[in-house]
Amino acid sequence: MTTTQQHQDEAAPAGATPEQLGIGMRFSLHPHCDDFVEAILGALQEVRDAGLTEGLVTETDVVSTYVGASTAPAEQRLGRYLTAVLAASAQRTPTGHVVAHVLLSRGCPGEIACDPAVVGLPTPAPVEVPAAGVRAVAQWSLYPLLDAGSPAGGGSHMQLIVDAVERAEARGVASRPAHYATRLDGDLADVVSTAVDAWAAVGREVPHVVTHLTISVGSPALR
Amino acid sequence: MTTTQQHQDEAAPAGATPEQLGIGMRFSLHPHCDDFVEAILGALQEVRDAGLTEGLVTETDVVSTYVGASTAPAEQRLGRYLTAVLAASAQRTPTGHVVAHVLLSRGCPGEIACDPAVVGLPTPAPVEVPAAGVRAVAQWSLYPLLDAGSPAGGGSHMQLIVDAVERAEARGVASRPAHYATRLDGDLADVVSTAVDAWAAVGREVPHVVTHLTISVGSPALR
Repeated sequence: MTTTQQHQDEAAPAGATPEQLGIGMRFSLHPHCDDFVEAILGALQEVRDAGLTEGLVTETDVVSTYVGASTAPAEQRLGRYLTAVLAASAQRTPTGHVVAHVLLSRGCPGEIACDPAVVGLPTPAPVEVPAAGVRAVAQWSLYPLLDAGSPAGGGSHMQLIVDAVERAEARGVASRPAHYATRLDGDLADVVSTAVDAWAAVGREVPHVVTHLTISVGSPALR
Repeated sequence: MTTTQQHQDEAAPAGATPEQLGIGMRFSLHPHCDDFVEAILGALQEVRDAGLTEGLVTETDVVSTYVGASTAPAEQRLGRYLTAVLAASAQRTPTGHVVAHVLLSRGCPGEIACDPAVVGLPTPAPVEVPAAGVRAVAQWSLYPLLDAGSPAGGGSHMQLIVDAVERAEARGVASRPAHYATRLDGDLADVVSTAVDAWAAVGREVPHVVTHLTISVGSPALR
């Protein structure tokens, strides 16, 4: 082990790995055009060819694509991949209108093996995602799944949500609250980063956290 | 008050009204075709003209449509409306492929006024939704949002989910679990009813419950 390697290991946040925590997402792409198959499969392939699936495991089924993070920096890999694939799909869509629905999950690996006794929750750095040059509008919901036995089990899930929305507002990305969701508005990369960072931040206190995002690009209602 | 009216009032489940509980949904329609505007707005109008918005408040914005239930039977109104609007959109989509993303919420009226001390959680009857004659495949996730102070605050959110999935399996609609979601497969009306009933059933024990569904109709991968 080199000195540099040793230093990195010591500096790394203690605790569970991305795989042990089940950090990943499930997303679907909805190109609003007749030739939607190409605008979905072409975008998935393009982003794979660009190397953005490094450190990720992907699996596409008839409804959506699962993306699991196998190595750190898990959140950044997911944020960059998602931004790139949605931008690529929009470029391939003649009408320009594509919507992605995204579920980000952490703390519940496997189907139902949710372990409230997990210790050493990581403290990931904020993600850095290059600007996409594409405006996006999203509706975003965050779900801290508290249990009596979890580290933050004595708390209130709403307080965790309110704090996260206030941090998103301070970034200038979150704006109007709507029923059941908060509106995010900005460059696609900022919209994705805001949701990913909020989800990761709550994950420092609660093991199982899920966030859902409906991200719209190129809607005629916004032109 | 007539005797019949009195009897109905006595037989009605005690507790909070749909409006007090904030029972409603937010959904987006994604027709995979060039003329997507007509397939969205035409379907919304068609279902309104058919009287299916009775007892519901709707509000469409640039990302999705909010539907709040103002009167009982709240769950049945939502299930029938959602099934009808997705079927109508599929009929208006030349490629036949439409995906809806749906968020059903209860127990958190207003933006953040989630009251864990709410009492008298209702026990709605299973919904009855006429068969749509359209096959749907969905990925479904259920989130019981427990707090320390809530009636079921001492419990485990995963146990509530496992029980709900087992009931959905017993109906023959839930099949394979996937990462972060359970696959539902069947007539569109059965898929919607299964998710709505599961969400309502957990709502008897936990005030704030959210469920998300990505429902796919007419996918070429299923033909």
